[in-house]
Amino acid sequence: MSAPFTFEIAARDGTARTGRIVLPRGEIRTPAFMPVGTAATVKAMHTHEVRALGADILLGNTYHLMLRPGAERVARLGGLHKMMHWPHPILTDSGGFQVMSLAKLRKISEKGVTFQSHIDGARYELTPERAIEIQGLLGSDIQMQLDECVRLPCPDVEAARAMRLSLRWAERCRKTFLVQPGREEWGRALFGIVQGAADRALRVESARELSDMDFEGYSIGGLAVGEPQDVMLEMIETVMPHLPDAKPHYLMGVGTPDDIVEAVRRGVDMFDCVMPTRAGRHGQVFSRFGKLNLKNARHADDPRPIDEASAWEPTRTYSRAYLHHLVKSGEILGMMLLTGINLAYYQELMAGLRLAIAESRLDDFIAQTKEGWARGD
Amino acid sequence: MSAPFTFEIAARDGTARTGRIVLPRGEIRTPAFMPVGTAATVKAMHTHEVRALGADILLGNTYHLMLRPGAERVARLGGLHKMMHWPHPILTDSGGFQVMSLAKLRKISEKGVTFQSHIDGARYELTPERAIEIQGLLGSDIQMQLDECVRLPCPDVEAARAMRLSLRWAERCRKTFLVQPGREEWGRALFGIVQGAADRALRVESARELSDMDFEGYSIGGLAVGEPQDVMLEMIETVMPHLPDAKPHYLMGVGTPDDIVEAVRRGVDMFDCVMPTRAGRHGQVFSRFGKLNLKNARHADDPRPIDEASAWEPTRTYSRAYLHHLVKSGEILGMMLLTGINLAYYQELMAGLRLAIAESRLDDFIAQTKEGWARGD
Repeated sequence: MSAPFTFEIAARDGTARTGRIVLPRGEIRTPAFMPVGTAATVKAMHTHEVRALGADILLGNTYHLMLRPGAERVARLGGLHKMMHWPHPILTDSGGFQVMSLAKLRKISEKGVTFQSHIDGARYELTPERAIEIQGLLGSDIQMQLDECVRLPCPDVEAARAMRLSLRWAERCRKTFLVQPGREEWGRALFGIVQGAADRALRVESARELSDMDFEGYSIGGLAVGEPQDVMLEMIETVMPHLPDAKPHYLMGVGTPDDIVEAVRRGVDMFDCVMPTRAGRHGQVFSRFGKLNLKNARHADDPRPIDEASAWEPTRTYSRAYLHHLVKSGEILGMMLLTGINLAYYQELMAGLRLAIAESRLDDFIAQTKEGWARGD
Repeated sequence: MSAPFTFEIAARDGTARTGRIVLPRGEIRTPAFMPVGTAATVKAMHTHEVRALGADILLGNTYHLMLRPGAERVARLGGLHKMMHWPHPILTDSGGFQVMSLAKLRKISEKGVTFQSHIDGARYELTPERAIEIQGLLGSDIQMQLDECVRLPCPDVEAARAMRLSLRWAERCRKTFLVQPGREEWGRALFGIVQGAADRALRVESARELSDMDFEGYSIGGLAVGEPQDVMLEMIETVMPHLPDAKPHYLMGVGTPDDIVEAVRRGVDMFDCVMPTRAGRHGQVFSRFGKLNLKNARHADDPRPIDEASAWEPTRTYSRAYLHHLVKSGEILGMMLLTGINLAYYQELMAGLRLAIAESRLDDFIAQTKEGWARGD
């Protein structure tokens, strides 16, 4: 295809890679962390802050947006970028994962999935074709195929059925995507999603079949759903040799800083997770010194900032005592500051990973990073 | 006294005045609106935003801060300005009003008031001396005497008793304040508070007695507690001739935009109110076009901004449809944006009032402003 979506790998360190995705709306430095903007907002953050923190791309959730405010309404308002004041790239999921985790009375068939909204009980149908149509209405730069995501652990026969259904849906999504209005102008991309639960053979089959469909990028789905980290890493290692090397690799819904560094080491280029934003709304902070719970009374008189070496001013300057006070008082500013502090750390970590790969010292960087987490403050 | 607190009246229009209060931490352009930062945060706002919106001074609540995080703790952290990252002037109330409205099991005596915290039931004593000590520990630039604020309507005998008790407390506060550490260095001011419920004679007595005590400024308290606007305005008109003209006049807890313009017309220089911030957290917007409830479904598809002529970017650029979506979804960003939009309008209104007074066209300005509110959008 001639649309201006490109991925360039600038450097490698073992199986890890660093590079950039280039789209008309901007560049995405990889490995990239995408803050989650579920309902057309990264919760408790202004978009200019999310940008200043180093985000090149946001994730939007098709499931939430199709229910409220509705894809056609977003389109009438000029698309998601314009509506939420984020002119840079946006990736949208297909809605499949949230239909599994949030919707009521869902019913899956070959055609697609029907479900009831968790907000008001209204009935919806999501087919592969509609999932792509919605993502086009939103104006998404990087779109995801509709897939069926199973819970782990999952019986083999069920995992195989869902994976093969997802393959058939991938073909239907691809076909719809290739005629989507605005696709070439905006350099839009569609990613396939590798499924297969925790079964190596199923994962390999899924990766191979999807590779033949020539997507712009490849996601690994159905992980980070409660399984042990070694299972997740084993699945990444299993899948990676069967995905096109020259295409971006996106591990969906991951994860903790430790999950991210281990996945980067294994060749993953893109991540999204609610962890930094959700944790920030619940008094938890990620930093070079590991995880802190600011609700804890030991912070009440601590005049030190979270990390005086941070590039993000609130991380560097607000006292832990003040942040503790805001969290204890349930103040919205506490959620705002902690969300920013967490996103700043995630982006700082990604920048560190990119530089370490470029300088062929990834293993050292990861070892030092883990030492810092273990040492605490 | 030699401390560097000064108030200059630059222009008058009828009984209205415009000028500036000068303190070591900065200037306050009057008439001034002070956003309320109850628990050491203007809810849902970064301090740099509050500043950018045009605030010269914030209000902090002694009652809330003495309970949490505690005045001594704030002092150990370097004071309220440093703790919350607001280097500009701060005015604190004395705690009297919130003891009346929030605390449990309060008991008033000549000595002071004892009460139980609404947070954890802990018992506290607040005397005139302690109220000043707390405000000194916080580092407040403009402090308030402890007063007893009665509910309206109030029997005359009760209003008289509370007003005279407040006068005796005013003397004790003044005495304590004059030896407060840091007073001269920071140019700190103590304001007396006129009480007397809705009784003209009591209000005049209170104003005269306080004037003799030579405070740096004078507050009118016990209004905007549910009485009709004409009662409030009558009390302002009654009191004003008996207050020193050369000192700032502060109407506590007021109010709606309409209350503010009418009080400015009658010679009030300073205001504080939770209205713009609280309304913003509940989906309501103040603008040149009056009050809007963004929960209302009529905004769901409206691409227009709140006011395209506003100096505040979110007021000028976000669609009503997007703001409606955020409010309906209970998103924190909705509270952040609407709070900022409301504070922007309040500060725009104050700037308009200041300029109109300076140019001797206050009545015209107020008439045009009210026309805009009545016209709607």
